[in-house]
Amino acid sequence: MVGTKGAETSSRLAESMLELIQRHGYSGTGLNAVVEHAGAPKGSLYFHFPQGKEELGERAVELAAARFGSLVTGSSTATATATASASATVGEVLGRVIDELAGMLEGSDFQLGCPVSVVTLEMGAESERLRGACADAFESWIAPVSELLVAHGRPRTVARVLATAVVSMVEGAVIVSRAQRSTDPLRCAGQAIDVLLAAQGVEASE
Amino acid sequence: MVGTKGAETSSRLAESMLELIQRHGYSGTGLNAVVEHAGAPKGSLYFHFPQGKEELGERAVELAAARFGSLVTGSSTATATATASASATVGEVLGRVIDELAGMLEGSDFQLGCPVSVVTLEMGAESERLRGACADAFESWIAPVSELLVAHGRPRTVARVLATAVVSMVEGAVIVSRAQRSTDPLRCAGQAIDVLLAAQGVEASE
Repeated sequence: MVGTKGAETSSRLAESMLELIQRHGYSGTGLNAVVEHAGAPKGSLYFHFPQGKEELGERAVELAAARFGSLVTGSSTATATATASASATVGEVLGRVIDELAGMLEGSDFQLGCPVSVVTLEMGAESERLRGACADAFESWIAPVSELLVAHGRPRTVARVLATAVVSMVEGAVIVSRAQRSTDPLRCAGQAIDVLLAAQGVEASE
Repeated sequence: MVGTKGAETSSRLAESMLELIQRHGYSGTGLNAVVEHAGAPKGSLYFHFPQGKEELGERAVELAAARFGSLVTGSSTATATATASASATVGEVLGRVIDELAGMLEGSDFQLGCPVSVVTLEMGAESERLRGACADAFESWIAPVSELLVAHGRPRTVARVLATAVVSMVEGAVIVSRAQRSTDPLRCAGQAIDVLLAAQGVEASE
């Protein structure tokens, strides 16, 4: 049994893993650093994550999926429905995502990146478990964007293609922005999204 | 003096570093593994790269920049001019890039990713030298795409925004494709690029 205090420790460990992955990647994040960052008792890591780093990495990726997904769904937990955001235009929702990510980059002096990208690139060839968690994380962002486009009148197949391209563009733009220490690439992505939505008649169909 | 054989060893070491970074990331690539992969004599690494891993990583990023850049410029060395590709439409050039990257993913059973993305995400907070190399690499892809758009009649400011968004989208799509073990995300990016080019009147203005 893990009590309230145990659940807090488990949650702090996952949060610390997430932040350290965002900063240094997965391989560059040692478990001792995670325990120290979380201010958790030594030994607590294998109590809460008996399968070790891979399990903790999976939890961190799930945490990132839910957190960024909630920007799209407008709810505190990411779901594949766009109910909570039905009143916002697609452009408004995606604009909010761009603003949040720009804020994360500037607020961290361009030291934080996307944990799902880096885990995919480092561990995709090593761990099916982590690769699967990353695939699920991307899907958890593509699905609600796609649903939002459908809710605003786009055919399902067009919506899926557009949502996948938009998530890819935002993902890539965070990386280019981090490399260039400028949010300009993210802003360029925002402008391209507006063009894509207009070309697809998305806003016009509302 | 580094003779022909020395230059070959230096080149093989950089190629091996590049491939191992594409597969496992930067932190997960040990120098012993690089020397072994390159079939190079022990001790040759610090002879050719006296500053060690960071210097070798920088060379690998430069190599990746030139290799992928040449897909856009159509030449064996990447330059910021689009002369060699002036006869191809922008859509054709970017379609060729998408095809090449899809081939790389499928040919490696989705084990290879973009070395510039992963070095940015792992080392952006650690090494100004590597972060700078990654920023230069992205710029070496954005600039020729932008020049190609200008050559096909787009205003320079519009071309720059579009080129930055396109490079970000392709970059992100390689990562999502790798996570999902499918080239569908890359194909979605290709379709979105066609929509962007059509919306911007790029092909129409030729």
